[in-house]
This record gives sequence, structure tokens and C-alpha cells, in this order.
Amino acid sequence: MADPRAVIPTRTDARRHHDPGVRGFASDNYAGAHPEVLAALALANGGHQVAYGEDAYTDHLQRIMHSHFGSGAEAFPVFNGTGANVTALQALTDRWGAVVCAESAHINVDEGGAPERMGGLKLLTVPTPDGKLTPELVDRQAWGWEDEHRAMPQVVSITQNTELGTVYTVDEVRAIVDHAHGLGMKVHLDGARIANAAASLDVPMRAFTNAVGVDVISYGGTKNGMMFGEAVVVLNPDAVSHMKHLRKMSMQLASKMRFVAVQLEALLAKDLWLRNARHANTMAQRLAEGVRAVDGVEVLYPVQANAVFARLPQEVSRRLQKRFRFYFWDEAAGDVRWMCSFDTAEDDVDAFVLALKEEMAR
Amino acid sequence: MADPRAVIPTRTDARRHHDPGVRGFASDNYAGAHPEVLAALALANGGHQVAYGEDAYTDHLQRIMHSHFGSGAEAFPVFNGTGANVTALQALTDRWGAVVCAESAHINVDEGGAPERMGGLKLLTVPTPDGKLTPELVDRQAWGWEDEHRAMPQVVSITQNTELGTVYTVDEVRAIVDHAHGLGMKVHLDGARIANAAASLDVPMRAFTNAVGVDVISYGGTKNGMMFGEAVVVLNPDAVSHMKHLRKMSMQLASKMRFVAVQLEALLAKDLWLRNARHANTMAQRLAEGVRAVDGVEVLYPVQANAVFARLPQEVSRRLQKRFRFYFWDEAAGDVRWMCSFDTAEDDVDAFVLALKEEMAR
Amino acid sequence: MADPRAVIPTRTDARRHHDPGVRGFASDNYAGAHPEVLAALALANGGHQVAYGEDAYTDHLQRIMHSHFGSGAEAFPVFNGTGANVTALQALTDRWGAVVCAESAHINVDEGGAPERMGGLKLLTVPTPDGKLTPELVDRQAWGWEDEHRAMPQVVSITQNTELGTVYTVDEVRAIVDHAHGLGMKVHLDGARIANAAASLDVPMRAFTNAVGVDVISYGGTKNGMMFGEAVVVLNPDAVSHMKHLRKMSMQLASKMRFVAVQLEALLAKDLWLRNARHANTMAQRLAEGVRAVDGVEVLYPVQANAVFARLPQEVSRRLQKRFRFYFWDEAAGDVRWMCSFDTAEDDVDAFVLALKEEMAR
Amino acid sequence: MADPRAVIPTRTDARRHHDPGVRGFASDNYAGAHPEVLAALALANGGHQVAYGEDAYTDHLQRIMHSHFGSGAEAFPVFNGTGANVTALQALTDRWGAVVCAESAHINVDEGGAPERMGGLKLLTVPTPDGKLTPELVDRQAWGWEDEHRAMPQVVSITQNTELGTVYTVDEVRAIVDHAHGLGMKVHLDGARIANAAASLDVPMRAFTNAVGVDVISYGGTKNGMMFGEAVVVLNPDAVSHMKHLRKMSMQLASKMRFVAVQLEALLAKDLWLRNARHANTMAQRLAEGVRAVDGVEVLYPVQANAVFARLPQEVSRRLQKRFRFYFWDEAAGDVRWMCSFDTAEDDVDAFVLALKEEMAR
Repeated sequence: MADPRAVIPTRTDARRHHDPGVRGFASDNYAGAHPEVLAALALANGGHQVAYGEDAYTDHLQRIMHSHFGSGAEAFPVFNGTGANVTALQALTDRWGAVVCAESAHINVDEGGAPERMGGLKLLTVPTPDGKLTPELVDRQAWGWEDEHRAMPQVVSITQNTELGTVYTVDEVRAIVDHAHGLGMKVHLDGARIANAAASLDVPMRAFTNAVGVDVISYGGTKNGMMFGEAVVVLNPDAVSHMKHLRKMSMQLASKMRFVAVQLEALLAKDLWLRNARHANTMAQRLAEGVRAVDGVEVLYPVQANAVFARLPQEVSRRLQKRFRFYFWDEAAGDVRWMCSFDTAEDDVDAFVLALKEEMAR
Repeated sequence: MADPRAVIPTRTDARRHHDPGVRGFASDNYAGAHPEVLAALALANGGHQVAYGEDAYTDHLQRIMHSHFGSGAEAFPVFNGTGANVTALQALTDRWGAVVCAESAHINVDEGGAPERMGGLKLLTVPTPDGKLTPELVDRQAWGWEDEHRAMPQVVSITQNTELGTVYTVDEVRAIVDHAHGLGMKVHLDGARIANAAASLDVPMRAFTNAVGVDVISYGGTKNGMMFGEAVVVLNPDAVSHMKHLRKMSMQLASKMRFVAVQLEALLAKDLWLRNARHANTMAQRLAEGVRAVDGVEVLYPVQANAVFARLPQEVSRRLQKRFRFYFWDEAAGDVRWMCSFDTAEDDVDAFVLALKEEMAR
Repeated sequence: MADPRAVIPTRTDARRHHDPGVRGFASDNYAGAHPEVLAALALANGGHQVAYGEDAYTDHLQRIMHSHFGSGAEAFPVFNGTGANVTALQALTDRWGAVVCAESAHINVDEGGAPERMGGLKLLTVPTPDGKLTPELVDRQAWGWEDEHRAMPQVVSITQNTELGTVYTVDEVRAIVDHAHGLGMKVHLDGARIANAAASLDVPMRAFTNAVGVDVISYGGTKNGMMFGEAVVVLNPDAVSHMKHLRKMSMQLASKMRFVAVQLEALLAKDLWLRNARHANTMAQRLAEGVRAVDGVEVLYPVQANAVFARLPQEVSRRLQKRFRFYFWDEAAGDVRWMCSFDTAEDDVDAFVLALKEEMAR
Repeated sequence: MADPRAVIPTRTDARRHHDPGVRGFASDNYAGAHPEVLAALALANGGHQVAYGEDAYTDHLQRIMHSHFGSGAEAFPVFNGTGANVTALQALTDRWGAVVCAESAHINVDEGGAPERMGGLKLLTVPTPDGKLTPELVDRQAWGWEDEHRAMPQVVSITQNTELGTVYTVDEVRAIVDHAHGLGMKVHLDGARIANAAASLDVPMRAFTNAVGVDVISYGGTKNGMMFGEAVVVLNPDAVSHMKHLRKMSMQLASKMRFVAVQLEALLAKDLWLRNARHANTMAQRLAEGVRAVDGVEVLYPVQANAVFARLPQEVSRRLQKRFRFYFWDEAAGDVRWMCSFDTAEDDVDAFVLALKEEMAR
């Protein structure tokens, strides 16, 4: 294979519009692609391959997915997380179906209403303390199946890890799945950061997905080091049908699909997915540790993956934002979110903690 | 900049699942990415860039688009053609609006019903002899604006070049636009192969778009040599609003958008778009010429871009398909479609024509 | 409370805003309700009845429907024809499904895009000479089930009688149903004027519906003498599920449903449906006969139900419209539609024919 | 034809399937139509009237609506409340818009997901103590207009009176409207029981609608004594457009619209709307008074309209339900809802209270 370093242009290339040495804590989406992913794209290039998923790379991806999720799994590469979620949830619901999810779920608060507008999906939301559903919380919305006046709860959708950086244990996922299945409902797992969750729990991804009965997952590749691309991974083939039609009509069918598939392969064929996730999580631990040592800054949730939520004076955050990019989570409350990525360096964290200390001291 | 050849892996790389030396005539989507596009992706990689389109590459893309389509143009990169079309058409219609298009239009026959399902769009179709609308053909569906029983015709959508490989002249587009505007309707141009059309007409792309009043185009990059990605390009800002919201809710917002933008830049900053398109068109001419010399094979439409449609005995096509990939267009009639791409070699064409002769002679 | 007998207004009641003695030939929707229907509404009034269809009248309606369509039939009263069609077609399709229908079908041309917008349904239309599909015409769109780029043809929808006043014979319907079922497709019958068709064929309604395998019908009551209301009648329970949920979410669930059900009962319990339909058809025959005797007026389609389509000079039509209401069907061609209703009187027809003669002679 | 006076059935008419002397407390939808409404239907019957709303009754209705809501008001009769709400909210939103409403709003919990599925509408819900929004509660969801990841809050929808039987004061509505308008949002009022609210407040309906700036209302007729029918009433014509197209595509366009319009006229031309509402409210007061005197029964919300919510032992409710129909509101908590209607008699209330006492004492 080509030396991936060969693809790295020099820092002074005149056509480069950004400084590749600058990183922040705003989002794992701010990072680029891992060099091995870029190399894989080059590998898959050249010649002709059947379009729309009948290529050798997409075919090969199925075998790789089997190694992670069992031989019944089937992956349907798509473009992005919203596309993965809306495609998966349409597959899991009838026209009259609804989806029980946490109020803080990405599908509820961060997808511009795509589930409702594109999928005609009703979301039945539940407030949670930490982004995590429980069987009891599910029950607050899982009722009324016979009542035509109510959108029928057919799916429970959980996010692993959650939008608040917390991670369901294997037993917690199993309890939700068993409960949902007992109610005749199916389970969708939004795995935009599934690799981080596995790294955090130190278990294979299957441990909290097909091993406990999750039906369909939105497999997240972009935040884990891909340039673009996710996949709907069907673990329970009986739970859905005609995924290809659904993906196409949901505008998520890539013509040159080999380039999505080979990126997923680059992550999943060996351990790049895990290395990237572990690194990001480790950086978040380092960051949390550093932050906890700063007087006046409160870490808000258990730091279990690659996110650190904290509360600090707003004006401190605003000054700090001039030095490192990051977002307010709840500006009124002074809550911020700091995300680590596969490419976050130890030096980045240390410099950030130092800057935080300085700004707190001003 | 890095030598793009550096990114080309050796042909014997064990992880390569395909033979990069094999090409066919099935689709311009079977080709991979142009090496300069791959190099551009590497260039844009590294460091952090704001996600969701607030990055330096997407910003720079606007200036490049201005050079092609005038300073009023604004590009909204999206993932694929279906996404571009459905986003654009939603922007151009009210909830009660309908779209007049050719019966053969991609939006009507090749998008799995995405316009109807995702956009709630009614298509008012017109049969055409060659994939091209005319003012007269538009009139067959452009009426009844006051009648609430009728989906209101608000947009004319044309494809340039058409799905049948034909190309509207500048005057033909102008006539449709003037007619549509005169009726209070807007004009969308599906430019999945817009570069091929410009190359065919030997005019700048603006000549048959903003210069004649087209309101919004779906700019096609993938078939022109990108790995993935298209853009909705708004030429008439008064015709639409809130494109960003529409793109997001249509599941077409890339998080790491720099990687779509930089590919478009690679095509459009200099002349790669035109080189690629000219080459594909030239190969189609070479192919058509070769084919016309074969007794018993009829070329069906004017070969004006990178497609050759032909009629020949079905069994000949079936034998030929074992040697080169291509599709039947209308199997019962014996009609086939042969597409050329930016990477089609003269030798490919000559070998194909030779094979055709051989199979015709058997 | 007021004596209910007080409800009968005199013809000179000051609160009456129209002249009940005036009738035209514009539409069977211009007529009011048959007096027996009005009487039935009064009958069902008073006291409390469970809302949303759990009342005694809706229950009773099921038995009446069984007498017409067999014991497997189930009726779901709805508000109007568009609602019936969109509810029925959603029930018969998956999210990726499409509906094959005549280009002239009401669902295609007269429902404001409701099937597409509300149901996400793609219509695959076929031009027909007389509004009637055939197995051969169905085949023009019934293909490509495995192709995700194509909306999947899952239903054939026919209108009986058609929008052009023609009537399928029993054998013609059977041929379509057998063909569709052989292709794995289901059959919907839009019966906005189903009673007129039965009267025309002189067979029970079951003869061209459940007896030949039609899966679901939109049962038309309004044009047959009801004040408002139609019903989705499921003939093949295996073809659909959760009709109640679909009806509710399609905004077609009447709270005081007894008032829809009792109107259907008024039509169907005895022979009012047939008397009304026969009368309207007879009036159309009388009209056609009269018209055919007028030089310069051409009757366009076989007059098989309650509609007469004719071609005559536009200026004659325009003068005639000042005396009797009716619509142009194709103004440019000079085509008009004259509809008869359950309340059309022989004198109405004779006066109209006389007026036509006069205007033709001017 | 039959003498229309023959329409009045005797109480022992064999075709009557229910006992018109039985009433309960389940819903104001269990009641039938007021005799004056029935009389109006008869009045509007006979002869031909233009279909789809171009009739004299719908025309006249506009003038009547002006007398209530000012000369700028325009009424669009529809079939039911869900239809009114979904049509109105589509009119008030762009494709990317969202609706802020109480968690308990009918549009959120009782319409089978119709707003999401049919309108593509995202609901942004807020928990409330008593079904009533306030400017502060609105603010919990009214933010983020520039953020494409968020469905854009464009409308505040309030229900007057609320689903919990509480009534906004004029000042409370004004405060919400002023706040919403200040934010660039529009205000929709779901007036399924608007007459009860006006009766409760003892003000004209305009006092809490157009007088304080509400943009569009769903005018409720069915619960107020109509057989079926509601209306979208546009108070601010600048807030919407193409209502007729929206109504049609939303499957809410009645062909024989005169029969919806004349019912609204029957309510609104004189004071029937108010008499009916006052009577129902008075019965609810009588019921609440009676109930409060029963030990062990707790009235849950202020009784301001025609609903009484109470908490009592579940087994008592179950026994009582065998004597009078009513619904549990929250079965686990023992909460029930008792509704009074225009036809609730004092004797009904007294008998019910007596029965309640008896069952509590068992």
C-alpha cells in the first residue's frame, strides 16, 4: 500500500485554505479524515466499479461487519447520521408508528425536523437526567397501541454513547431491549459515537448491540475518523425489509459507494475504529482531570466517552472561545461542551487547560 | 502540493478488491475520482475546520462559483443528485406546488419516488421525443394555477444534458425560461452532467444558466470526476429562501463539508471540469462513429454529450455484456445505453467497437 | 327543545339563500342530499352515541356492507373521496410503493397532489383512450420491482365508472385484477360513482369488486345522494392492516361518525343507492339521445353512466352556460362535460336540449 | 319525491339503532346535532349549488364570520378538528417551520401524528401545569431561529379552552400573542371549544382572538352542536396564503360545502353557539358543585368550561362507568374526565352525582 504520508500536502501549499495545525474542542466533526482512511480512498480509486453498492468494496464490507456484529448483520452505507437515523427509523415503523426517545436525542433536537418531515415520524420524547432511557422512562410513552388517536409506539431509539457523553452499560441496554421487545417494540441504536462507547466499556461493539438484541443501528463513521459516511446496520433482518428502497428514496444512496464502503473498511477491518475512539476518550479523561483541578469549573456529567460538559462563568467561556473553538450547550446556565477527537493531541488538552486556568484567573 | 501519483497504490496491493485497469460503458458513475480530486481531498485534510459548511473551503467555493455563475450565485454543497434535486425543488415550490418535467426526467423515473415522498412534490410530466421540453410541451401541464384541485405548476425542471444524451441549445433553454417566467413559474436545471453540456455547446456554463435566467441548478460533480458530492447553486436569490434549513432537513448537510467543497474547487478552480467533460464527450463521439460503421446497429438519438444510445439485436447485447458492462435502456426494444466517462480511454472505445463487430458477426 | 318537526323550511323561508328549484348539469356534487338521507340523519340524532365509530350505526353499517360485499368486508367511513383514496392507497402500499393508474384518474389530476403530499405516494400513470386501464396498459408501468431506483409498483388503481363516464365490464375488471395479483400487486377501485357503474352493468356491486378479487374500494356516497361521506371498504382483509390508525392520521376520522354511517345505511339498506344511480344514468341517456339529434354536437365517449361528454363550438357552450351551469372539459378543443344527478328531472334534460338547439341555431 | 316532512322519525322507529334518551359524560362528541342545526341542513337542501365552496351558504358564512371576527376574517370550512389544525399550521409555517405548543395539546397527543405525517410539522412541546402556555413557557422552545439544525419555531399554538378545561383570560392570550409577534412568530388558536371559552369569559369570541392579534383559528363547530364540520378562520390575511389549495391537498375540501357552511351559520347567525356553550358550561358547574360535595372525590383543575376532571378511587369509577359512560384520563392515578354537552340535562347531572355518591358509599 502507498505510504499514507505521501498524501499529506505540505503545510505551505498555496491552495490550502486552512492551517492543519490548528485544533479545538468544538466537535469531533471539526476533525478531518484519518490518514489511513485517506489512503483507503486512494486504494479504492481507479478503474470502474458497479455503482450504487454492487461493487467489490461494499461486498467486502459485509464480511467485515459480520466479524463485528455476527453473520446476520447487513450494512447499508449512507451519507450522514441524519440520513442513517431517518432511514433506519422508517424501516422500523409502519406509517402509523412512533419512536420513543430521550428528549435530548439527536433525532429530536438536532436534525432540523428531518424525522418528522422526511419520514413522517412522530417522536414520543421523555426527559432524562443524563441522556439515558430506562425501561421505566420508556414506559412513560410506551402505551396506547390500540388507540388510533395516538401515534403507535413501535420503536425505542437510544443513543450510545449519548448526546451528553454518558454511556449505557451492557446491562442497561439489555434491560431496555428486553423491555421493548416484551412490549412488541423494536430497538434502534443511534451509534454516531458507537466506537467511543465500546472503547469506554472495553467490550466489543456486539456486546451492547446484537448480543443483547438491538434490531438496527446507525453506525457512525464520520466522527470516528472518516471523511464522510455512516451505515445503517441491520442486526435483526426480520425487523425490516426493503432497506435498499428505503435508502434510495431517503436520498442516501451513494452512486460511487465504494468510497463509503472502503472508509468503513479502513476503520473496521483492523482496529483503527478502536484506536481512534480510545484516543479520543483518553483525551477527554485527560481534559476532565485537568478541568476538575480548576476552581470554579464544574464537570456536569460522568465523563465516559469523548465529551466533557462543564459549567463555568459565561464571560470566561467567551474569552476562552477566542483562543479555542467550542460551543455553549446552555448559554444561560453557563454550560459548555468540549469534545475530543481522534486527532486531539495531549498538547492540545494541556494548552486548553492552561488557557482555562488563565481565563478563570483574570 | 503533493504529487498526486503518490496517492495511487500499487496494482497488487493485497487489500485492493478490484482491478483498476478494467473499465466499461455502463455509467459515468462507475468511474472513480479523478486524481486531482483525490489530491484536493488530501490538501483539505488535517487540523480542525468548522463543521457544517462554515469552513474555509466552502467559503472559498463561493468565490469560485461566482467566477462561473456570477456574483449572485450561492452554492450549497450536498451529497448526491437526488438530494440536490429534492432540496432545490422544495426551495422553489410552496407546499401546494408542482413541477413540470419531461416524462424521462431523472426526478420522475430514477429517484425512487424521493421527490414525492420526501418533498411532497407532485410531478406534472410531459412525453418528449428526445428528453427535451419546449415551451409548447411545458404548456401541456402549465395551466390551472387558480384551481385548487390541481397541484399548482410552479417550476419547470429541465435536465441539461438530458437523460437521453441530448443537449439543449442556449436558445432552447432561454425560450423555456422566458416562457416559464412569463407564466410566473421558476426554472430548475438538473445539471447532473452540466459540464458535458457546456463542453458540447462550447460555451461557459453560465451561457445556458444565469445568462438566460435559470433560477436554481443542481450542479453535478460526481459524474464529472468527484468521489461524491453535488451542489444546489442558487442563481436567483429571490427565487428561494432558507436553503440551509432545507438542506439540513433534507438530510443533505455534510458535517465535514470541506471535503465536498474542495472537490468542487478541484473541478472548478481551473479547467478540470471542462477537460473531464470534453474527454468524455470526445470518447462518445469516437464510440458513435465506430458504432455507426457496424451494420445492424442503429444509433438512436443525436450524440451530443457522453452517452450513446443504440438499437441492436438483444442477443448480441447479451453476449457483449459478458465482455463489457453496460445497461439495456429498453430491453424489449433492444435499446442500450453506452456511457463514456472522464477516464474512458481511446483503447477502451476501440476494443469495445471491435467486440461489437465480432458479436454482430457471430 | 325545539320540536324537530319544525325543521322543514318552507320554500320562502327567509334564511334560505338559494332557489331549490334550480338545477344544472355541472356536477353530481351540485345536488344536495336525498330526502331519505336527510330523514336518516334525523333518525340517528338525539341522545349520546360513542364517538369515533364505536356507535350503533357504524356497527350496523358493517352488516349492511356484508350484504353487498360479503361477510369479509369492513367499511371505514371517511369524509370525502380524496380522503378515501389516500387512506386506501396508503394502506395498500409500503413506504416505497407506487400506484399504477390511468393518466386521467381523479387521484392524478383532481386531488391537488394529496396522494403525493399526504401519502408520499408516487403515481405511475398510463395514457388511456377512454379512462380505462387494461392488463397491457398496466404492464407499461408494472415492472422493476427489484430496482430501488424505481418507486415500486404495488397497486393498480382503477376508477369505476371512470372519470370519462365509461364503465369497465365485469370481465375487464377481472382481467386487471388477475393480472395485478399475478404480478404480486393489489387492486384498488375508486368507486366515487360505483353505484352508477352497477346500475349501468345491471349487476350487484359485488360482481365487479369482491367477486373478481378487488382488494379495497373507495365507496362513493356523496355523488349518490349523501350530504357528505364516503367509506374505505376493505374486501380483502389480508391486503391491509391498521385501517383505523391510517384513517385517523389521514384526518378522516369523524367524531360523530353515526352521521356518516346512517347516510350510508340510508343508501344501502334497501335500494336507494340503485334508484338514485339508475335515475341519473337514465337521465344521461335521455340527454345523450337529445344531444345526438342536434346537428353540430358530437358525443365523445360511450355514455355508460351519468356523464355525457360532447364537443361543440365554444361560443355555443359559453352562451349555454349562461342558462345552465356546466364545465368545459377541454376548452381549447371545445369539449364539455354534462353530468346528471339523482335529482335531475326529465324536464331539466328536455329544457337543456331545447336550449342547446336554440344556441346552436343562433 | 318523498315529502320532506316525512323525515321526522318517531322514537320507536324500527330503523333507529339507539335510544335517544340516553346521555353520558364521556365527551361532547357523543352528543348529536342540535335540532336547529338539523333544521338548517334541511333548509340548505334541494336544488343545485356550486360545489367546493362557491355556493351561497359559504358565501353568506363569510358575512356572519365578519360579524364575529371583523371584516378581515375569512372562514374556510373543513371536516374536523385535526383537519382544521393541520391545514392551519401548514399555512402558518414554511417547510422548515415548527410549532410551539403545550405538551398536553390535542395536536400533540390526540391526532395520531397527523401534524407530523401529513404536514411534516415538528412540534416543540412544553410541559404546563394546567394546559396553558405563558410567554415564559413559550421561551423554553422559542429560540434558535438561525440554527438550521433546529426546526424553526414559527408558530405558537394555544388551545382555548384547553384540553384540561381551563380557559385563558383575554390578557393571558394577549401576552402570548404579543410575545410571539415580538419574536417574529405567528399565533394559532385551536378553538375546538372556543364557544365554551367565550361563554366562560363572558366576552365575544373576538375579544381573545382578533382583538388581541391571534392570526388563525381552528373554529370548532362539532362539539358546539354541529353534526360535523369546523372551519379554519384566518384573522390576519397577511399571515397565510393559498388556503384553498392547502385545504384541498389536506383532504379537507367538502364537495357539498353548503352543508358545512349552513351548520356554522345556524350556530353563529344568532346566538345558538352561545346558548349551547353556556348551557354546557353551566352543567359542568352544576356537576362540579355536586361532585365537590362528595367525600373522597377531588376536582383537579379549575372548572372553567364544560369539563370536570376529578380524582377518585379507580374501582368506584369502574362501577360508575357501568351506569354512565366516561373516560379515565390517567387510569393509574385514578383521574377521570367528565364532559358536559349542549344537550346535557340538569337531571342527567343530578342522576350522575347521585350515582357517584352511591358508588362511593358502597
